[in-house]
Amino acid sequence: MTDYAKGLEGVIANESALSNVEGAEGRLTYLGHSIDDLVANCCYEEVVFLLYKGRLPKQAELDALEKRLRGDRALPQGVLDFLKAAPKDASPMDVLRTGVSMLALYDNRVAIGEPDLAKVEEIGYSLVAKVPVVIAAFHRYRQGLELPPVREDLSEAAHFLYLITGETPSETATKTLDVAYILHADHGMNASTFSARVTVATLSDMYSAVTSAIGTLKGPLHGGANEGVIHMLEKIGDPSKVDEFVEGKLERKEKIMGIGHRVYKVLDPRAPHLRDIAVKLSGELGEPKWIQMSDRIAEIMRERKGLNANVDFYSATVYYSLGIPTDLFTPIFAIARTSGWTAQVLEQLRDSRLYRPLTLYIGPKGPVPVPPIGER
Amino acid sequence: MTDYAKGLEGVIANESALSNVEGAEGRLTYLGHSIDDLVANCCYEEVVFLLYKGRLPKQAELDALEKRLRGDRALPQGVLDFLKAAPKDASPMDVLRTGVSMLALYDNRVAIGEPDLAKVEEIGYSLVAKVPVVIAAFHRYRQGLELPPVREDLSEAAHFLYLITGETPSETATKTLDVAYILHADHGMNASTFSARVTVATLSDMYSAVTSAIGTLKGPLHGGANEGVIHMLEKIGDPSKVDEFVEGKLERKEKIMGIGHRVYKVLDPRAPHLRDIAVKLSGELGEPKWIQMSDRIAEIMRERKGLNANVDFYSATVYYSLGIPTDLFTPIFAIARTSGWTAQVLEQLRDSRLYRPLTLYIGPKGPVPVPPIGER
Repeated sequence: MTDYAKGLEGVIANESALSNVEGAEGRLTYLGHSIDDLVANCCYEEVVFLLYKGRLPKQAELDALEKRLRGDRALPQGVLDFLKAAPKDASPMDVLRTGVSMLALYDNRVAIGEPDLAKVEEIGYSLVAKVPVVIAAFHRYRQGLELPPVREDLSEAAHFLYLITGETPSETATKTLDVAYILHADHGMNASTFSARVTVATLSDMYSAVTSAIGTLKGPLHGGANEGVIHMLEKIGDPSKVDEFVEGKLERKEKIMGIGHRVYKVLDPRAPHLRDIAVKLSGELGEPKWIQMSDRIAEIMRERKGLNANVDFYSATVYYSLGIPTDLFTPIFAIARTSGWTAQVLEQLRDSRLYRPLTLYIGPKGPVPVPPIGER
Repeated sequence: MTDYAKGLEGVIANESALSNVEGAEGRLTYLGHSIDDLVANCCYEEVVFLLYKGRLPKQAELDALEKRLRGDRALPQGVLDFLKAAPKDASPMDVLRTGVSMLALYDNRVAIGEPDLAKVEEIGYSLVAKVPVVIAAFHRYRQGLELPPVREDLSEAAHFLYLITGETPSETATKTLDVAYILHADHGMNASTFSARVTVATLSDMYSAVTSAIGTLKGPLHGGANEGVIHMLEKIGDPSKVDEFVEGKLERKEKIMGIGHRVYKVLDPRAPHLRDIAVKLSGELGEPKWIQMSDRIAEIMRERKGLNANVDFYSATVYYSLGIPTDLFTPIFAIARTSGWTAQVLEQLRDSRLYRPLTLYIGPKGPVPVPPIGER
C-alpha cells in the first residue's frame, strides 16, 4: 500500500487510549471522561494522574502525586545559570525548548538503549513539575528580578502564578489557570504530540521528545495561535471597530486567528469553558472590551462562515485578563500539554514502532552524470 | 480515507526532490546524481550546494559557499559558556541538541509568523557551519582543553578534525571524513528528517526543526546504531571469537547492530564505500582486527540470513580508525545530516502543510462519569 496523504490527512499513525477527539460531535474526552465533567469536578493534578495511570486517583494517590510534583520543582543550578544569562529579549518558547533540553544533562536517569519505563515515567513527572519553573525563572530574570523560592504548599496552577508574580495568587486566578491546564492537557494526535512520539520512537529519550514537542508547539499554526489572537484584538482596539476589521479580512480572504478548527467542525468543546471564564474575569476587572470584541468577532464568523471560535480564541482573553504577558501564552499551553506529551511518550514506548513514512520522489530521474566542476 | 499504518509504513507523507532511496535496487541518489559519482568527483560542500540549490555548483559558486560557511563558524559567547559549564559526562547528543536550540537565542533572524525563506536559508547554512563547532567545543572542554581558534582555510571535514585534535589533519583523514559526510548528507524520509519537517510545518523555525531532528537521531534505532556497532566489536574483542558471538545472537534471535536495513533489501549502497575506506585505514594503521571482525560478521549474516551490512556497520570502524571517540559517532552523523535536514526544512516550507495524522482511539468509550474523589 502506498497512499499519498499530504500532511498525513486521514491517516491513522498510532493507537492511543488517552484522549478522544470527536470532531463531528464537538466532544473531547480523557480516558472516556468528558472535559466538561473533569473541569467541573477535578483539579489539574487529577488529570495528570488520569493520563499517566488510565484512571482517576483516590485521595491518597492524589496526595502522593502532589507531593511528588511539589518536591520536584527545583531546577539544577546549571539551568538556572543559563536562564539568567539568556538574552532578555529571547522568545520564551526558544528559552523553554533550550531549558528542557538542558535538564537532560543533569539527569542520570537518561540512559541509552532499551528504555526503562519506570524511569521514563519519573522523568515525565519531573518535567510536569519543572517546565513551569523554567518559564517563570526566565520571566523573572528578564525583568531583572530574582525567582522567588519554590514552595511546596501550592498547586501547579497556583505555584506558577506565584512564581511569575512573587505573590500568592487569588483563588479565582488559581482556579482559572487550573481549568485552562485541564482543557489543554491532551488532544489526540496534534502536531506537537506527534513530534514527541516520532522522536521517542527511535528509542531516544523523554527530554528529546518533549524538546521536539516544544519546538513544534511554537509555530503560529499550532500553539502560537493564542498569541496571535491578542495581537489581533490589540490591533482592533475597540468593539466599535470589529465589524470593519472582520469584513476587511473576509474581503481579502485572510484567516482570522482563533476561528475554526481542523478537527472540530461543529464546536471546539474547550471554547465555551474559556468563554465563561473570560466573561467572569472581564466583569471582575471592569474591563469588558476584550470579551465584547471577542464575542462580536465570533458572532460575525459564525453567521458569515459557519465557523466557531476555538480554544485559542478565548484562552488568549483569559490569560490577558489574568495579567499574563502575551509571550507567555504559548509557554502556558506548553506547561499544560507537558502532561499529555509525557503520557503519550510513555504510551508510545509501551508498544513502539519507528515512524518512517515514505516520500514521493519528484526530483530528476537518475543517474544524472556529474560533470567536472569546470564544465558545469 | 482512514488507514491505520503503524509507524506510517507504506504511507507517503510528503514530496521531495532531494534524495531518492531506491530500496529494491540498493541505490541512493541526490537530485538524480548517484552517491557513487558524488563520492568519486565531489566534496561535501558541493553536496551542500546541490541539496540547497538543486544542482551542482560552478567553481565560483562553490568558492562563495565555502567562504560563507567558513565565515560562519564562530559561536556566540553564551553558547560557548554553556558548553564549558556543561557536565563533562553529559551525552554529546544531549549537549548538541541543547547547543543548537540555544543558538536561536542569539539569532535575530528567527521571526514569528510567515517564514522569510531567504532568512531560513541563511540560518540553514549557519547551522551547517556551527553544528560541528558545538560538538568540538564540548569535546575539548570536557577534557579540560580550550577550543582551538576557528580557521577559515580548512574544509568542513578538515576543520572538524582540526578542532577536536588541535592539529591540521592528514589528507587521508580529511578525505575519509569528507566521504562519510557525503554518504550521510540526506536519506529520504528517515525518522529525524521527518521530525524536522513535522516541527517546521507548524511554521515554527529552523532551529526548532533541527533541534527535533537531533533528539530523534539520538535513538539507538536511528543514529545511535553506529555507536552500538563499536560496543559490539569491543565486546567480541578478537576475530577468532566472531563465529561464536554471532551464532549465540542468532540462537537467541537477537538483532546484530548494523546489519540489515528497513528500506534497502539488497544492499545499502553507502556501505561498500565505507568498507573500502575501513580496509584502507586498517592497513595503514596496522590494526586489521576491526575490519576482520566486521567482515566476518557481515559474511555470516549474509550466508545465514541474507542480510547485508548497512552504513552504520562500517562507518563505526572508519571513525574508530580515525581515532574519534565512540560517543562522537552519532554527533558526526548529525553534522553531515544537518545539510539534509536544513535543505528538507526549506523544501517543506516552500509548500507546507501541517502534519496532523489521526490516532485510533482504543480507550474507554465515554462518557464515563467522574465520581467524587472519596468514592473512587
